[in-house]
Amino acid sequence: MFDLPRHVHLHEEGPREGIQIEPIHLSVADKVRFIEALAETGVKQIDCVSFVNPKRVPTMADADDVARAIRKKPGVRYTGLWLNQQGLERALTLPLDVVGSIRMTASETFSVRNTNRTIAQTVEEQRSWLATYRRHDIPLEWGYVMTAFGCSFEGEVPVANVVAMVGQIIDLAAEFDYPLKGVYLADTVGFATPADIERRIGAVREKWPELKIGLHLHDTRGTGVANVYAALRMGVDQFDSSVAGLGGCPFASHKGAAGNVCTEDLVFMCHEMGIETGIDLDALIECARMAEELFGHGLPGKVMHAGSLERFRKAA
Amino acid sequence: MFDLPRHVHLHEEGPREGIQIEPIHLSVADKVRFIEALAETGVKQIDCVSFVNPKRVPTMADADDVARAIRKKPGVRYTGLWLNQQGLERALTLPLDVVGSIRMTASETFSVRNTNRTIAQTVEEQRSWLATYRRHDIPLEWGYVMTAFGCSFEGEVPVANVVAMVGQIIDLAAEFDYPLKGVYLADTVGFATPADIERRIGAVREKWPELKIGLHLHDTRGTGVANVYAALRMGVDQFDSSVAGLGGCPFASHKGAAGNVCTEDLVFMCHEMGIETGIDLDALIECARMAEELFGHGLPGKVMHAGSLERFRKAA
Repeated sequence: MFDLPRHVHLHEEGPREGIQIEPIHLSVADKVRFIEALAETGVKQIDCVSFVNPKRVPTMADADDVARAIRKKPGVRYTGLWLNQQGLERALTLPLDVVGSIRMTASETFSVRNTNRTIAQTVEEQRSWLATYRRHDIPLEWGYVMTAFGCSFEGEVPVANVVAMVGQIIDLAAEFDYPLKGVYLADTVGFATPADIERRIGAVREKWPELKIGLHLHDTRGTGVANVYAALRMGVDQFDSSVAGLGGCPFASHKGAAGNVCTEDLVFMCHEMGIETGIDLDALIECARMAEELFGHGLPGKVMHAGSLERFRKAA
Repeated sequence: MFDLPRHVHLHEEGPREGIQIEPIHLSVADKVRFIEALAETGVKQIDCVSFVNPKRVPTMADADDVARAIRKKPGVRYTGLWLNQQGLERALTLPLDVVGSIRMTASETFSVRNTNRTIAQTVEEQRSWLATYRRHDIPLEWGYVMTAFGCSFEGEVPVANVVAMVGQIIDLAAEFDYPLKGVYLADTVGFATPADIERRIGAVREKWPELKIGLHLHDTRGTGVANVYAALRMGVDQFDSSVAGLGGCPFASHKGAAGNVCTEDLVFMCHEMGIETGIDLDALIECARMAEELFGHGLPGKVMHAGSLERFRKAA
């Protein structure tokens, strides 16, 4: 097992992914309570809100109030997601950690449907963001390739397109004289299997052996945790994940959608394999149970229902 | 990916696992309809019933009627589970495929709680079964080590105990002059991670390099599919699994219990990685949806909610 990383970094997506898709409107106080509880678990970065059109995502209409109300814990970053310049400008007015990113979508159709921009228009949009980062002295961190495995409109996305898009992201960062922390491959709609993980990461590494790779995975077809394991074997130590598997619920009204790979299930697997995450698993399980209470229905996370194995160790 | 097997054999456990734990009483006709639909998917072995005390498992009281009513499809084996000599004798009176097995439990406490016998008493019980197989000319196939990873009462089960128990099974088969097809390691209560899979299979193989290994996994803590992937990498090609992830439902009354790893999610992963299963995934997804209808609530399988990727290939 010596090829596994010793420490894995998880970016918590639950509050944003969950509140984005769940039909129930939580109060600002409940959203804040949820985010603050997560911050106590040892999670180091929490995506809290998205700055999107409230007509399209009504449950995010109070994003500004949420961003302002969170009592920030030192050492934790509280981020928000924007999809256009307007959202970025809005983020800049709020007491959040604005972390510079480049966001491209490998599928032309998905790009248009999700952001109303072609890939070429998205490159221009990224230039506008990068200029804004420069203006505000915001560091650039990760580039993201959305639909890097497949697309619900176009089907499989060719590996060559993904590699080309990673190249575009690297070039964009260089154009603005920014070092890039690495590139995330996002399985936005859940096409990936472990073999795809190996193939696509392998293709990117063949061209840029030193580039750090992160994964944003959705557990749409049951392979999420297996995909993480395949990536761990390749030394990947950076993942987005979502407490309780928030971000879509196959048991409720969102047939077919599915959340990010579940944070506490990943933490369980990592800890049991001797990989550190810096997260208190039992505290995180409590947050997952809080999410079920807040949203009023069962959520797909597994270890939250079965419990960790700590109680057996304490008994022994 | 050349270390993966080319073909994987799945034993379908859904009807038995599901009907055993779900509180709803299906009619004999519905049980039979479900089993017959599964047989049409290409699945080659279906565990249909368990011959247990109807006072302990009331939904299995009509197991004999179900066994008699199924219209058998040639090439498919319809099996039942027994936990004692009485159950085995009952199976022998019915038009089912009685497949000889040896069933031991690595945890003493679990053995007593589940079967009311110590490990030593279980060895004696197995001799009684083996003598019965001999008497009725029943072939012996697999040995099973239950709780081969951990136990809800004792915690982690030492690797040495598992290896010793595999040895006991091999000796029992030899005592009755039976060749053994292989040994299943069962993660009965969902303790396993991919690292455990590698460690325990590795330990067994170190002692018996030629012994075939199968896995019976429960997805109790979210690692089920990752565990399968770890085993596939080691060339394991024999798994139990359960359509729709039947066998426990974290969203219903069975808090903490969880079904077998989900058949159609495994089939999806295998096919997408170029591994054959002989199963029609879309037909199997229809069976999973039938299970949700029959039991009247959402089940944890993933690909059944999202759909396979075949439609994208047909469109292309």
